[in-house]
Amino acid sequence: MFNDTLDVVGVGNAIVDVIASADDAFLAEYGMTKGSMMLIDEPRAEAIYAAMGAAVVTSGGSAANTIAGIAALGGKTGFIGRVREDALGAEFRHDITAAGAAFPTPSAKDGAATARCLILVTPDSQRTMNTFLGACADLGADDIDAALVGRARVTYLEGYLYDAPSAKNAFHRAAEIAHAARRKVALTLSDPFCVNRHRSDFLRLVERHVDVLFANEAEITALFETSSLDAAIAQLRRLTELAVVTRGPGGSIVVTQDDTIAIAAVADVPIVDTTGAGDLYAAGFLFGLTRDAPLHECGRLGSRAAAEVIGHFGARPQSDLRLLLTQSSG
Amino acid sequence: MFNDTLDVVGVGNAIVDVIASADDAFLAEYGMTKGSMMLIDEPRAEAIYAAMGAAVVTSGGSAANTIAGIAALGGKTGFIGRVREDALGAEFRHDITAAGAAFPTPSAKDGAATARCLILVTPDSQRTMNTFLGACADLGADDIDAALVGRARVTYLEGYLYDAPSAKNAFHRAAEIAHAARRKVALTLSDPFCVNRHRSDFLRLVERHVDVLFANEAEITALFETSSLDAAIAQLRRLTELAVVTRGPGGSIVVTQDDTIAIAAVADVPIVDTTGAGDLYAAGFLFGLTRDAPLHECGRLGSRAAAEVIGHFGARPQSDLRLLLTQSSG
Repeated sequence: MFNDTLDVVGVGNAIVDVIASADDAFLAEYGMTKGSMMLIDEPRAEAIYAAMGAAVVTSGGSAANTIAGIAALGGKTGFIGRVREDALGAEFRHDITAAGAAFPTPSAKDGAATARCLILVTPDSQRTMNTFLGACADLGADDIDAALVGRARVTYLEGYLYDAPSAKNAFHRAAEIAHAARRKVALTLSDPFCVNRHRSDFLRLVERHVDVLFANEAEITALFETSSLDAAIAQLRRLTELAVVTRGPGGSIVVTQDDTIAIAAVADVPIVDTTGAGDLYAAGFLFGLTRDAPLHECGRLGSRAAAEVIGHFGARPQSDLRLLLTQSSG
Repeated sequence: MFNDTLDVVGVGNAIVDVIASADDAFLAEYGMTKGSMMLIDEPRAEAIYAAMGAAVVTSGGSAANTIAGIAALGGKTGFIGRVREDALGAEFRHDITAAGAAFPTPSAKDGAATARCLILVTPDSQRTMNTFLGACADLGADDIDAALVGRARVTYLEGYLYDAPSAKNAFHRAAEIAHAARRKVALTLSDPFCVNRHRSDFLRLVERHVDVLFANEAEITALFETSSLDAAIAQLRRLTELAVVTRGPGGSIVVTQDDTIAIAAVADVPIVDTTGAGDLYAAGFLFGLTRDAPLHECGRLGSRAAAEVIGHFGARPQSDLRLLLTQSSG
């Protein structure tokens, strides 16, 4: 078992999502920026929860969603992230383990509570996220299970980890171990505000340590401080071997050293809640990559996995994603 | 405020649903009967949870779902049910209150944990329920808020309450108060196995105390121990003033003293999870009834509310049900 190769190990924030419908006035009242992620403290989390509507509670966390998606596609996965020993922590552990991922990080016996993300879904199906990082903020380099990371073809990191200093160390440690084992490192930029907070770090990181970069249009243009997607793609090509830019209903663009491949989004999908669309795109893409599928197939698999998750509340798949593997290309 | 009339007060089990996909083999392995509700103890709840897939957690409880549905339609509601002061109890209280219902029952400081229902959704979209009643089992006559019940046009009771002796007393007390205040009492039979457990009690109860009865086909034929729906309807007419028999995709039948009205189900609805279909049918029907709508309109509103809830995981509405009120009849 110890020597078994894994497809992807994710390192990220271990978060439980609390999702409710809200109108634009609610976002305005609480000073939220639609479509983005805002970090909040526990009292604000309590206040927003008390005011928000009836909720659906489901495990989340960007990299964790991706790992659950890869597992649902049939990939072998692991996850590293920090919860506390409490009800939400037990829920997170149950769900990631039930998805089929190894989750060796022990639950903290004390300290901050398990992280939660209060997600407001507006009538336009956009999601606006308010994250209390809680126990995640104490993820450190010691939490990186070197054997697990060394066994994975790809180590997948979320940019959100940069929001906590010790988690940033964990991030670097995981990237070092992966490269020392001659494995690939993938990164998602997570959020345009996260990119603004850590731009110079991210630029250095992508150039030196990232083999596969995931970003949406807002994140990649924020990274290069340009309003032109073409200009961002040209700069991206100089920094990394392989990158994917997702564009919501506009599909996605795979960028390699000498190619730019446009992938269509799945058409006519009923959109309920866009939470997890990027995470599940990455799941489909990475699953394809670990199976040595051609890049356009990786992108199509990403589009299909994203299409499933936007059809319901919550960022983890609810249907059997393996069925996506048998769909005809197109 | 004290004298304000409410539309419906529900009395029922205060339960949090834990919902996951499962295959038929899983049901077989755990000896579950597909489509039914089985009572379980806490160790079995832990064992099933450990074995089941990644879950979505959302407030449930049959009467509570109905109350949340009526509130979502714009009705004034209240709910009586018992949770403990724990994480799931806080979640239940948040959700029913956020839906807009008054919820005066205090949380228990000790005793059994808040109830949960482990729901397995099979690929045919059927739900199979395993309920650990926990704190609900201690609901008693003292928990019935006489002022709240006295203010409600309709007091709605769930048959599941009969599964705990003290909750049965609460049930009777609520019916007495409602009738003393010259209000209506509605009952749902809940489940065919529940009917089998309490048949003679239910027959006596319906005859003496129930003004509006809700049942599905399996429950009503179980009540009268017949395989003929027509025979059951004939007997039903002798026992109660108004009854509704729901038939899933076959629609529903409204039974009065001198009329039988067939209502079609909403056609072409994508079915994800049938949990809550009956509860939301009752919500639409009772909302119509409290607005003095004609019975066929009540039935249509029931069908539309049921159609919303079967389109996603969870038994509470996720979209704005008030939009249903503006749909054309048909």
